[in-house]
Amino acid sequence: MGGQTVVAEGRLRAACEVVARAEQLPLDVVEQRVREGTVVVMGSPAGPAQPLGIGLGLRTKVNVNLGTSPDLSSLDEELRKLQVALDGGADAVMDLSLGGDLPAIRRAIRAQCPVPLGTVPLYEVALEGCRRYGALADIPGEFFLTVVERHCAAGIDFATLHCGVTRHALLRLAREGRQTGIVSRGGSFVAHWMEATGQENPLYEHYDRLLEVLAAAEVALSLGDGLRPGGGCDATDRAQVEETIILGELVDEARRRAVQVFVEGPGHVPLDQIAANVTLQKRLCHGAPFYVLGPLVTDVAPGYDHITGAIGGALCAAAGADFLCDVTPSEHLGLPDEQDIRDGVMASRLAAHAADLVKGVAGAAEWDRAMSAARKALDWERMAALALDPGKVAEVRERRRSRDESGCSMCGEYCSMKVPIVAGAGPQTG
Amino acid sequence: MGGQTVVAEGRLRAACEVVARAEQLPLDVVEQRVREGTVVVMGSPAGPAQPLGIGLGLRTKVNVNLGTSPDLSSLDEELRKLQVALDGGADAVMDLSLGGDLPAIRRAIRAQCPVPLGTVPLYEVALEGCRRYGALADIPGEFFLTVVERHCAAGIDFATLHCGVTRHALLRLAREGRQTGIVSRGGSFVAHWMEATGQENPLYEHYDRLLEVLAAAEVALSLGDGLRPGGGCDATDRAQVEETIILGELVDEARRRAVQVFVEGPGHVPLDQIAANVTLQKRLCHGAPFYVLGPLVTDVAPGYDHITGAIGGALCAAAGADFLCDVTPSEHLGLPDEQDIRDGVMASRLAAHAADLVKGVAGAAEWDRAMSAARKALDWERMAALALDPGKVAEVRERRRSRDESGCSMCGEYCSMKVPIVAGAGPQTG
Repeated sequence: MGGQTVVAEGRLRAACEVVARAEQLPLDVVEQRVREGTVVVMGSPAGPAQPLGIGLGLRTKVNVNLGTSPDLSSLDEELRKLQVALDGGADAVMDLSLGGDLPAIRRAIRAQCPVPLGTVPLYEVALEGCRRYGALADIPGEFFLTVVERHCAAGIDFATLHCGVTRHALLRLAREGRQTGIVSRGGSFVAHWMEATGQENPLYEHYDRLLEVLAAAEVALSLGDGLRPGGGCDATDRAQVEETIILGELVDEARRRAVQVFVEGPGHVPLDQIAANVTLQKRLCHGAPFYVLGPLVTDVAPGYDHITGAIGGALCAAAGADFLCDVTPSEHLGLPDEQDIRDGVMASRLAAHAADLVKGVAGAAEWDRAMSAARKALDWERMAALALDPGKVAEVRERRRSRDESGCSMCGEYCSMKVPIVAGAGPQTG
Repeated sequence: MGGQTVVAEGRLRAACEVVARAEQLPLDVVEQRVREGTVVVMGSPAGPAQPLGIGLGLRTKVNVNLGTSPDLSSLDEELRKLQVALDGGADAVMDLSLGGDLPAIRRAIRAQCPVPLGTVPLYEVALEGCRRYGALADIPGEFFLTVVERHCAAGIDFATLHCGVTRHALLRLAREGRQTGIVSRGGSFVAHWMEATGQENPLYEHYDRLLEVLAAAEVALSLGDGLRPGGGCDATDRAQVEETIILGELVDEARRRAVQVFVEGPGHVPLDQIAANVTLQKRLCHGAPFYVLGPLVTDVAPGYDHITGAIGGALCAAAGADFLCDVTPSEHLGLPDEQDIRDGVMASRLAAHAADLVKGVAGAAEWDRAMSAARKALDWERMAALALDPGKVAEVRERRRSRDESGCSMCGEYCSMKVPIVAGAGPQTG
C-alpha cells in the first residue's frame, strides 16, 4: 500500500478535526483513513478553502465545473456562476477555463471561492504552450511541470493531471477500436503531443518531480482519466481498464511521497456496468477515493444530461464512489450558463444524497424522515426549509397556487395526507 | 397461474400484430406472453388508442398523468398538457381529474388521445358520491361499480382500481406504525369509506362483478397500490408487502376471467430496496407487468422530483419494471403545468431508455451507438435529430452559440472529438 500521509501536525491535522466534526466521525477514524489514503482532506480552517473530506464513509461530495471557453469568455459570468454553485451547495469547484487570461481568471475565482478549488493544468500547457512555442511538437516536456508549479503557487487545492495516458495505454486504445476515441480534453491534448513528439507523457515520465511539486504545495492529486469512454458503447473497455491499472500504480507512488490522491472515473457507462466500475477502481487503486463525471447512463439525451448524470451518479455513489462532478443540461451542447449551473448542482446533490441514504452516512436518513414528518403534518414552511432547494419550492408553489394554503393545488381538499391512519376496520386478528 | 387470455381473434389479435412489429418480436412470442399474462396489450388498430404492449421483453413504456384539481380546473390547460405529453413521446396517459365536470373532461381527453387512456374511477366515486349521497358513509358500495361501468363505457383502455386495500391489509398498516400513512388518493378514500361504514372494500368484495365489467369492455385492470409508501422510511414495509400479496391473488383471478392485468408499485423507495421490490412484485404477482410511480429515491428534493423519479425509474426498469409513470417537478408542490409535463415525460423516457439499454430491448443500443457516431463526426444536425428531445437541443445550442458552427461553445476549437484516435506512439508491443 506504500507509505503514509503525515497528519500529526499543521494544516492537515486542523482540517481533519473540522472534517471529523462535519461528518460526525471520530477524529482518529478520519486521521487513520487519511493515512491509509481512503480519505483525502483538502483545505484549512485558515482558508482560503475550508476543510473538506472526500472518501470512505464520508458524505458524498459534489464538484461544480466552471470556466470560460474560447467562444464564451466572460470573467463576470464565471464569477456569477461560482456564486450560483456556492449558493446551490457545491462542495468544491473546478476552474476549467479555456479562454481569456487564464491566470487572471484563476486568481479571481480563488479570491471568491471558500471551497476547495481544482484546475486542469494541461489546458494552460496547451494554450500557452502553442502560443509560446509555435507548434504542439515544440512544447518542451519541461513546460508541463512549469505550468503545474504555477497552478500550485496560485493556491489551488487539487489538480487534475492525466498521468495515465501513457504510450502503453494508447497502444491498448488503438487496438481496442473505440467508437468515440479520446473525449477528455486533457487526455486528447497529451495524446496529440505524444503523437507529435514521439515522446512519453511528461506527467508520467517525470511523475516523481510532479509529486515533489504537489507535496511541497500540499496540493491533492486528482488522477485524470484521459481514456474515459465518451459513449456507452466504449465503457469499461480495455483502454479504460488499462489506464485504471496504471493510475493504481501511480496512487501507490503518490502515497509513498505523501501526496494525497484520488482517482477520476467515467464518463458514459450503462446502468449494468456502474457497480463493476466502482469495484474495479477501488480494487485496482487500493481504496483511493473515486471522483466520477456522471456517469451518463445513455448517450441520447443532450439537453437533459444533468438527469442522465444524476441517474448514473446516484448508482455510482451508492456503489462506493465518493465525489460526483456535476453535469449540466448544456453538456455536449455548449458552455453552461447560470441556470445550467444551478440545475447541475441540484441534480448532483440529489444523486449524492440518494446514495448517502443507502451508504449509511450520518444524518442522511434523518433528513428524509424529517421531510416525511413535515409532509404528514402539512407543514409547508418546514417542507420548504428542509428542501434541497428552498427557492425552487417557493417558485413552484407560487406558480401553481392553491386556494387552500394548508394544501397544494395538486389534490386540494382531497390531499391524502389529510387522511388519518385507519386503525383497521373491525376486530380482525389475521 | 389461472386461465388464459384469448388472443385468437378480434381486437386483441390485431393489436398483438402491431405490437410485435413495433417491438421487433415474433407474433407468437407476443401472443404467448399475453396468454401467460406477462405482457398486456391495449388499444386497437381501429382506435381510439393505437396498440401498445407492456411487459416482459418489451420496450419500457411511459405514462403521463393529466387531470384537473379542485384548485386548478381548466379543460383547455389539460388538453394543452395532453398535447405536450404526446409531442414528448408519452406511450399512455391517465386522466386523474379531481375538479370540474369529470365525465366531460374525460370525453374531451379521450377524443384527442391516440394512446391508451387510463383513469382512477375512485376519484369520481368520492366526488360524485359525496354530492349525491351527502356523506361518505352513505355512499353505497354498489355505486363503486356504477362508476367503473361508466368509465368503461367512456372508452378508456385501463382503470386503476385499489382492490387490495382490504380490512386485512389495513390491520397490517395500523400495526406497522407508518410515518406517512396512506398517500394514495384512491387508497385513502376507500380506507376512509371502510372506516366510516365498517364494510369491506367493495372493489375487493365484489371483485368478480368488477372483472365481468372490465372483461365485457375489454378494459385492462391496473391494480392500484393504495398502501404504497409515501416516504423512504416506509418503503417495503409489512403493509406494502401484505397488499402486494393480495394483489397477486387478484392477478390470478383476473387472468382466470380473461381480464388483462398489471400491478402498480411504489412510490418512495431507497436505492438499495428497488431491485428487491421488483423481484417481490414479479414473484408474488406471477410475472404480471409492473407499473411504477417513480420510485423516488429520496424525499428531500421537491421541485426536482422528476429527477428523483428518473433515478428510481431507471433502476427499477433495469431490474424488470415495465411501465413508468412520469413524475413532474411540481410533485408534492402543486398541479403540473405544461412545462412540468414536458420535463416529466422527458425524464421518464430517459430513465426508461437507460433501462432498455441493459434489458437488451431491440434497437436501444443502436440508438446510442448512432448518437456516439454522430458526436464523433461532429454532425450537429444528426445529433439533434437523434436526440430524445430535438427541440431542447436547438434551444440550448441557440442560447449558448459557438462562433464555430462545427463545434460547440463548451470547448470551441479544443473539442476533444476533433482529435483522431492516436495509433500508439511507437513500435511497442506490450
